[in-house]
Amino acid sequence: MFYYDNKLQYQVRVDTPDPRFARLLQQAIGGVEGEMRVCLQYLFQAFGARGPAKYRNMLMSTGTEEIGHIEMLATAVALNLEGSSSRVKDEFAANNPVVEALMGGMDPRQYLSAGMAALASDANGVPFNGSHVYASGNLAADMYANVTAEATGRALACRLFEATDDPGMKDMLRFLIARDTMHQQQWLAVIEELGGHKGTLPIPNSFPVEEELRDVSYDYFFTGVEGVEVPSGRWTQGQSLDGMGEFRLNAVKPMGQEPKLAPPMPQAYAEKQQMEGTSGDD
Amino acid sequence: MFYYDNKLQYQVRVDTPDPRFARLLQQAIGGVEGEMRVCLQYLFQAFGARGPAKYRNMLMSTGTEEIGHIEMLATAVALNLEGSSSRVKDEFAANNPVVEALMGGMDPRQYLSAGMAALASDANGVPFNGSHVYASGNLAADMYANVTAEATGRALACRLFEATDDPGMKDMLRFLIARDTMHQQQWLAVIEELGGHKGTLPIPNSFPVEEELRDVSYDYFFTGVEGVEVPSGRWTQGQSLDGMGEFRLNAVKPMGQEPKLAPPMPQAYAEKQQMEGTSGDD
Amino acid sequence: MFYYDNKLQYQVRVDTPDPRFARLLQQAIGGVEGEMRVCLQYLFQAFGARGPAKYRNMLMSTGTEEIGHIEMLATAVALNLEGSSSRVKDEFAANNPVVEALMGGMDPRQYLSAGMAALASDANGVPFNGSHVYASGNLAADMYANVTAEATGRALACRLFEATDDPGMKDMLRFLIARDTMHQQQWLAVIEELGGHKGTLPIPNSFPVEEELRDVSYDYFFTGVEGVEVPSGRWTQGQSLDGMGEFRLNAVKPMGQEPKLAPPMPQAYAEKQQMEGTSGDD
Amino acid sequence: MFYYDNKLQYQVRVDTPDPRFARLLQQAIGGVEGEMRVCLQYLFQAFGARGPAKYRNMLMSTGTEEIGHIEMLATAVALNLEGSSSRVKDEFAANNPVVEALMGGMDPRQYLSAGMAALASDANGVPFNGSHVYASGNLAADMYANVTAEATGRALACRLFEATDDPGMKDMLRFLIARDTMHQQQWLAVIEELGGHKGTLPIPNSFPVEEELRDVSYDYFFTGVEGVEVPSGRWTQGQSLDGMGEFRLNAVKPMGQEPKLAPPMPQAYAEKQQMEGTSGDD
Amino acid sequence: MFYYDNKLQYQVRVDTPDPRFARLLQQAIGGVEGEMRVCLQYLFQAFGARGPAKYRNMLMSTGTEEIGHIEMLATAVALNLEGSSSRVKDEFAANNPVVEALMGGMDPRQYLSAGMAALASDANGVPFNGSHVYASGNLAADMYANVTAEATGRALACRLFEATDDPGMKDMLRFLIARDTMHQQQWLAVIEELGGHKGTLPIPNSFPVEEELRDVSYDYFFTGVEGVEVPSGRWTQGQSLDGMGEFRLNAVKPMGQEPKLAPPMPQAYAEKQQMEGTSGDD
Amino acid sequence: MFYYDNKLQYQVRVDTPDPRFARLLQQAIGGVEGEMRVCLQYLFQAFGARGPAKYRNMLMSTGTEEIGHIEMLATAVALNLEGSSSRVKDEFAANNPVVEALMGGMDPRQYLSAGMAALASDANGVPFNGSHVYASGNLAADMYANVTAEATGRALACRLFEATDDPGMKDMLRFLIARDTMHQQQWLAVIEELGGHKGTLPIPNSFPVEEELRDVSYDYFFTGVEGVEVPSGRWTQGQSLDGMGEFRLNAVKPMGQEPKLAPPMPQAYAEKQQMEGTSGDD
Repeated sequence: MFYYDNKLQYQVRVDTPDPRFARLLQQAIGGVEGEMRVCLQYLFQAFGARGPAKYRNMLMSTGTEEIGHIEMLATAVALNLEGSSSRVKDEFAANNPVVEALMGGMDPRQYLSAGMAALASDANGVPFNGSHVYASGNLAADMYANVTAEATGRALACRLFEATDDPGMKDMLRFLIARDTMHQQQWLAVIEELGGHKGTLPIPNSFPVEEELRDVSYDYFFTGVEGVEVPSGRWTQGQSLDGMGEFRLNAVKPMGQEPKLAPPMPQAYAEKQQMEGTSGDD
Repeated sequence: MFYYDNKLQYQVRVDTPDPRFARLLQQAIGGVEGEMRVCLQYLFQAFGARGPAKYRNMLMSTGTEEIGHIEMLATAVALNLEGSSSRVKDEFAANNPVVEALMGGMDPRQYLSAGMAALASDANGVPFNGSHVYASGNLAADMYANVTAEATGRALACRLFEATDDPGMKDMLRFLIARDTMHQQQWLAVIEELGGHKGTLPIPNSFPVEEELRDVSYDYFFTGVEGVEVPSGRWTQGQSLDGMGEFRLNAVKPMGQEPKLAPPMPQAYAEKQQMEGTSGDD
Repeated sequence: MFYYDNKLQYQVRVDTPDPRFARLLQQAIGGVEGEMRVCLQYLFQAFGARGPAKYRNMLMSTGTEEIGHIEMLATAVALNLEGSSSRVKDEFAANNPVVEALMGGMDPRQYLSAGMAALASDANGVPFNGSHVYASGNLAADMYANVTAEATGRALACRLFEATDDPGMKDMLRFLIARDTMHQQQWLAVIEELGGHKGTLPIPNSFPVEEELRDVSYDYFFTGVEGVEVPSGRWTQGQSLDGMGEFRLNAVKPMGQEPKLAPPMPQAYAEKQQMEGTSGDD
Repeated sequence: MFYYDNKLQYQVRVDTPDPRFARLLQQAIGGVEGEMRVCLQYLFQAFGARGPAKYRNMLMSTGTEEIGHIEMLATAVALNLEGSSSRVKDEFAANNPVVEALMGGMDPRQYLSAGMAALASDANGVPFNGSHVYASGNLAADMYANVTAEATGRALACRLFEATDDPGMKDMLRFLIARDTMHQQQWLAVIEELGGHKGTLPIPNSFPVEEELRDVSYDYFFTGVEGVEVPSGRWTQGQSLDGMGEFRLNAVKPMGQEPKLAPPMPQAYAEKQQMEGTSGDD
Repeated sequence: MFYYDNKLQYQVRVDTPDPRFARLLQQAIGGVEGEMRVCLQYLFQAFGARGPAKYRNMLMSTGTEEIGHIEMLATAVALNLEGSSSRVKDEFAANNPVVEALMGGMDPRQYLSAGMAALASDANGVPFNGSHVYASGNLAADMYANVTAEATGRALACRLFEATDDPGMKDMLRFLIARDTMHQQQWLAVIEELGGHKGTLPIPNSFPVEEELRDVSYDYFFTGVEGVEVPSGRWTQGQSLDGMGEFRLNAVKPMGQEPKLAPPMPQAYAEKQQMEGTSGDD
Repeated sequence: MFYYDNKLQYQVRVDTPDPRFARLLQQAIGGVEGEMRVCLQYLFQAFGARGPAKYRNMLMSTGTEEIGHIEMLATAVALNLEGSSSRVKDEFAANNPVVEALMGGMDPRQYLSAGMAALASDANGVPFNGSHVYASGNLAADMYANVTAEATGRALACRLFEATDDPGMKDMLRFLIARDTMHQQQWLAVIEELGGHKGTLPIPNSFPVEEELRDVSYDYFFTGVEGVEVPSGRWTQGQSLDGMGEFRLNAVKPMGQEPKLAPPMPQAYAEKQQMEGTSGDD
């Protein structure tokens, strides 16, 4: 179960409120690279963890940390929407001030739906979607999902860092960027602990590889037509990363048949012509 | 631009049609681990590729291969829904055969909406959602997103392999599982080519690390209350994977303040009591 | 504005309640081919209608009729979920009756969320999505959208007709199928009234055709590789349907350049290697 | 910020695992009446709370409790999917055991996507959607949103109670139902503390009522056609609940005009006929 | 069934068209607080109503009224998008006028997709989502859902009132705000008619309370760590609102066990290390 | 299977990059009228095609062409976001340039999530949704779905043409508009080949018309109340388009009963008052 503290994990300060930056911050709350996603992803991975108990525990700890990041960002949104600063005051002193602020780039729903607070949505107002909570039951797959989340998350935080001049906001982002640095490493450290590429690949490593069609397991299939240069690299030559094969280049051709489906069954109510196999020019 | 062949990349054969398996196959078409996602993900990464041209080319080639995987799976769905096999014939010979088939575990929309064919949806009928198309503009982040897609995709294909006895379907899955093996390696090979952990971490590696709060960049924050065992591992000790720091354990406490928001602004129409800072027991 | 009657537009009778059929009926309520969609589509087209007033009026009338179809189908769902029939009684007499019924193919949310009534969702429980409400502002485009809705809607109703033996349900569907027949004609009658193909094509017909690249306005582009048979038909020869050109076959080749994007801008935080244009094998 | 404990808030025990019940439990995790929603709703209301600080604090406390309810339910799902019980063992001993289990009513994605664990989705596999996180910035509106969530949530838990015979699951549900009882009261207690109907209505009570069209503020508008009985009740007579008016019955007629929109502007590319105001029969 | 009138329920007049306000109005059409939601919610509650017939009738009447509110708002959107006013004319007289208008804060899809008319979406262009149509089958739960919809709806209308200077728009909003006042009261009047808190709580009141864990039915669980002040209020003391208990404060501790899941079953294809219970540091 | 070329189907040139136009172009990529939809729609129709093989082939060819249109538009987005032009340079030379560009009308996620590239979303950032991929199994219904897609798609392209002054962008749109012209004709040519209205109506034409309630198959139901003018036209008189009936006007009245549902079943946990059929005023 869970407990809370009445303080933030790290200080959140806004020197010059900017309703437009409040919109951008939504991406870090409810976006696919955001904190709701990592929080729920780590917690669901923990809740369903099977195997060595310490990974459940590790995931719980970091998932719990991330709830606090949502709190920090939601606080930052609310502070950026406050009318106390001179900049916003000026906007609100104009002829019809609310609509000016609304139309100057803020998320209208932060006002219309939330009365000047954060939403569970991204920077375009698209609601958080639970399908991004990856918890596959396979530890290595989940670790890569987590690295992805933290890599795109850190890219997002760096871009937000670029999009503000506010010292308070930059300070908060310095903290969040550093945490993303750690979390990228943390999930990759699990991969290392599991034996690296040779210990984990192919994922899932519990499926017997002899069951797969080994003829094509290390072939780079090239689908370019004549005239397109082959993109060669580490993936077209040398030992495979799992140590079990050699990369090869293969200009791929169909290995399969021309697909032929049965005529429509009567209950599916295609057009008669489909069922009779006729068409206008026959 | 693109071209097509009238043959499948690999043979698709269904010995004993099973409308229930046709439902499960939908996960590999329109699910978050499925082929629509990887196809569009690689193509969008290619379309937006900036930097060395060969990565665009490599992504185009594999993205194009994946269109053919959607085709294979959609063909497999259609064949599993056909009434030609004795098993399905029996089901359709019952009193009210369509409803029996529908209710025996198939996706009702494969009949109701598609007249016995595949949908752009997952195994629960949830439509494919474009937010899963990750193309971050950062090559390393994208490679980890691709590894994740292929790792969860291979886990899915292995589970589907387990869920059918049909020799034709098992044969098709052997091929797809092998391709997932290759594709996991392919994206990790790019990471290796870029210099591995030291060449890529922290992602994005173009953000100056001195801008982040280095004090907490390698700290494992432990949020468990007293009595919870600390989950130690590679992530709590030793050199960080980027070679720039040392992992540390940190039983975290709030570094921030108690958040205080301004009273509601009048135009936000909170309750009067909120604006006056009073409550019933004051 | 709108008014209601306390009677149904057409009789809804269920002789033998079947919770499984109640699930299938959801597709006709909240599915993409369903009545919520056509109802809202016609009403939104009416609400935004510009041009001859009679089309607004005609759309209002049919949109209003469709609200009553939602009512009929929701009533049919509720009646199919009732415990009064012997069939359902038997199911509920089993050991743990609710779970048996739930697991025998009904939509669990009709019980869990609605207490045995209809939902605003499709047959897989996916909620109705307003993006299917097409109202383009172009009358001809909207008429084709409406024909599509009624064509897929009638196919759905015919398939539902096949999926039940209940005389009451079949009677209700006979009515709905007939209405779909009429509505297909109604929207095509508008096209005819507007002058048919020559009066409406290309849609929108108010864009000056000389502004488009007329060289390719009647070419069937064939993208098959060598060995794929050309699919010839009405679309590869003869006068175009708008009477302004001749159909032609064109085995298409790229008319454009190889796309070259600028290097990543620094603020986008790509990997350094992308920005420097280097990769591991250089 | 937040902390966790390695124990559950209340004991979760499954005596006889049932993969079908694991599907139903999903509604209480990711459904609109579920724990993800209440958890996030209370936390977002807390994060954006303006006005008396104690309400923020109260919301934090209960929002934090709800994270633990997600944990309990996700644990219950995982336990219901375990192969250790004889019942499930038998299912898995059949010819093709996985597909039998999958097709016997479980959520296929609990296996295919999660490897036998909970998802962030509802009982139909529809992902949790953040638009259900209501945090309006108005305390009274939020309290009613919370009562709604707990009322539908308790109805759901009662229905789940009915849908299982498992003593462990019934025990867990007894706890969750009791908590829903408390939480309904808790939010209504805030309304009482704010002065009940007279202290809170109309919500928001900070909008000057004289600005609204008081002529229709207490009228029950009856839209039935002739022959429909008027539904009279507390809402058609007596003092209004805010004490500021009298309920009245009003058989409503249009007070507005026939809407007339301007012709389409040229850049909107309607059909020419719309722009010219002509139609085929003119 | 339903009928329509060619007049609006209340006059809709736009003195100075403002495409930006047309975007904000979308929230009142397709947003979670909007008219599509209340319209469909009341109608679905009516369609599935079981118990005293007058509630079905009352819901039908108000649901039907709400269709007319969608019509009013959609008309208001269309009028705000019209080029007839001097203000918009000026914008359209600029160099590239359409893009200026588009970029000045309007919803681009009102032009691109609808040709200057309303969409079935919210102020951020997110399509209406049917999962917000609450019809739980429990009358009291539904009444609170309806109060919530009207409370957030009235807050939204008040905020829109603040966001426009247009006399016509303000006049229309005065009407809609007044109707929301009435509708809040109407649903609460049903609660009063049912006996108020004692007659309805806990919802559902048909579940035998002795089946729930009465020990925790009136406890406010406090989850704050040491140092966090307890938020006391009406919910921590005094008689419970249902008259059946006493509120208590309870600084909650885990009552449950540490969750232990079985190892992964082989068919779920976890990593080998999970199945063997080993990790790199063992 | 599929192949690619390293050149674009048609030249994509941007003379003056405009990040705001990059947002509008998203509608043509991931919007309901966009290229992802037509591409996937034609391919899924092909993959599931039953009946004359040439239609599968024709659909494959055009579906494959459309992948190249996504590529063109994604390239156009990326070029519009580039900092190389003087116009964008100026914006980026301002005080805090990124936020200015972001707030000047561009899609913030093109920067935050994609690092200056296209997304699989529409002009409001709403992700592409697979439910728009219509493939009904009925050839005529699908052809009308395709005409709709190309009619709304061409209207969109014309509106985009209006929204830019850039010669390169206008040139690209001239090509795409011309292709939409052809594709509208192509799908209507199939209808003609199938025998036009008489050969295809009512869709599906394989359902025996005598099974439908022929009494109402050609009746225009008028639902306006007294005082509303009847909208007469081609649909109220003359021979029906399928040649099998006569259009008629019918001022519709209820043909059905007043719906009466059974009382709630106990396990559905309605309020007691519903189950007892009582209410407060009885």
